[in-house]
Amino acid sequence: MLSLKSSTAPWWLERVEENIEEILLDHAHCEKKAAGTAMNLIFSYVDRVELVKQLSPIVTEELDHFQQVIDLIQTRGMRFRRLTPSNYGQQLGDLVRKLEPGRAIDRLLVAALIEARSCERFALLRDRLQDRELAAFYGSLFESEARHHATYVQMALMFAPEAVVFERLQELAEREAEIIDRGDPNARVHG
Amino acid sequence: MLSLKSSTAPWWLERVEENIEEILLDHAHCEKKAAGTAMNLIFSYVDRVELVKQLSPIVTEELDHFQQVIDLIQTRGMRFRRLTPSNYGQQLGDLVRKLEPGRAIDRLLVAALIEARSCERFALLRDRLQDRELAAFYGSLFESEARHHATYVQMALMFAPEAVVFERLQELAEREAEIIDRGDPNARVHG
Repeated sequence: MLSLKSSTAPWWLERVEENIEEILLDHAHCEKKAAGTAMNLIFSYVDRVELVKQLSPIVTEELDHFQQVIDLIQTRGMRFRRLTPSNYGQQLGDLVRKLEPGRAIDRLLVAALIEARSCERFALLRDRLQDRELAAFYGSLFESEARHHATYVQMALMFAPEAVVFERLQELAEREAEIIDRGDPNARVHG
Repeated sequence: MLSLKSSTAPWWLERVEENIEEILLDHAHCEKKAAGTAMNLIFSYVDRVELVKQLSPIVTEELDHFQQVIDLIQTRGMRFRRLTPSNYGQQLGDLVRKLEPGRAIDRLLVAALIEARSCERFALLRDRLQDRELAAFYGSLFESEARHHATYVQMALMFAPEAVVFERLQELAEREAEIIDRGDPNARVHG
């Protein structure tokens, strides 16, 4: 359902358990970035009214999650601060074609894949995190990540026929799996 | 209350009456831009948790207004489309200082002044537009523009003492009045 071509390796969960603070900080920034991505798409394709209608509630939801993670960080006595992002988003961004409509399709499908990966990892955190309060929090975010994934794929279908979109989704999912399998030097949500 | 140094000239309302479609299109883009401005401020000052908490609902409200204007445009049988913006935002943007914390203060105060000008003009549209349905719509947006104005001024106070912020607000309000008095070649909300 989620289009992903690989499952998260066991080492990722171990690293999360050892770096909860860094993961929470990175997660907050991921939600902020997700809101920014949806907003940028509104600016780029503003005359596509149907697209804008679907993107606006995503901006709002991501900002709400962003605030929820900041609140959680502060409730736990940690200080919310800046953090070097993982190289995941940048590497996926490099795959986006320059010319329209390929560019629109790729931006939407890359966003769909990021939501899918978050969804897969949040399910893992929900089921396996030793900190059950945090596990419940990730469980509460699971549904919207899955829904956003589906919405982004639907939006890509506004720019090309189904066969074209799904073939490209397969290609990008292969690349996403390679990127996620290479990992990141730091403990990150998409590391 | 609104810090403005001039009142809108009568010619503006006449021009609005003659160019309702263009004004509605420009208004939609202004709401989009207002959402983008609040989002950009979140990205720039993300470690200021109190600021982020106040900016997030502004993004959401502006996007909601954006959608409301698009819906109104479509209900009236017009097509929502791109439009050359007025030169107002750009000219105000040029007044923003480059170095922090002056930069933060100026970005927030410029946003406050744009909200104030919208508020003043929406009150005029509410009271004077011949199209009473449209007048009621502008009346419904009035309160949030006034509130956003106050919130932006409050946020600037997170970066400098009251005397410093209010002196700069006076200076920027003088410049804003000059810019708005010069007008714009096209019929625009801030033209």
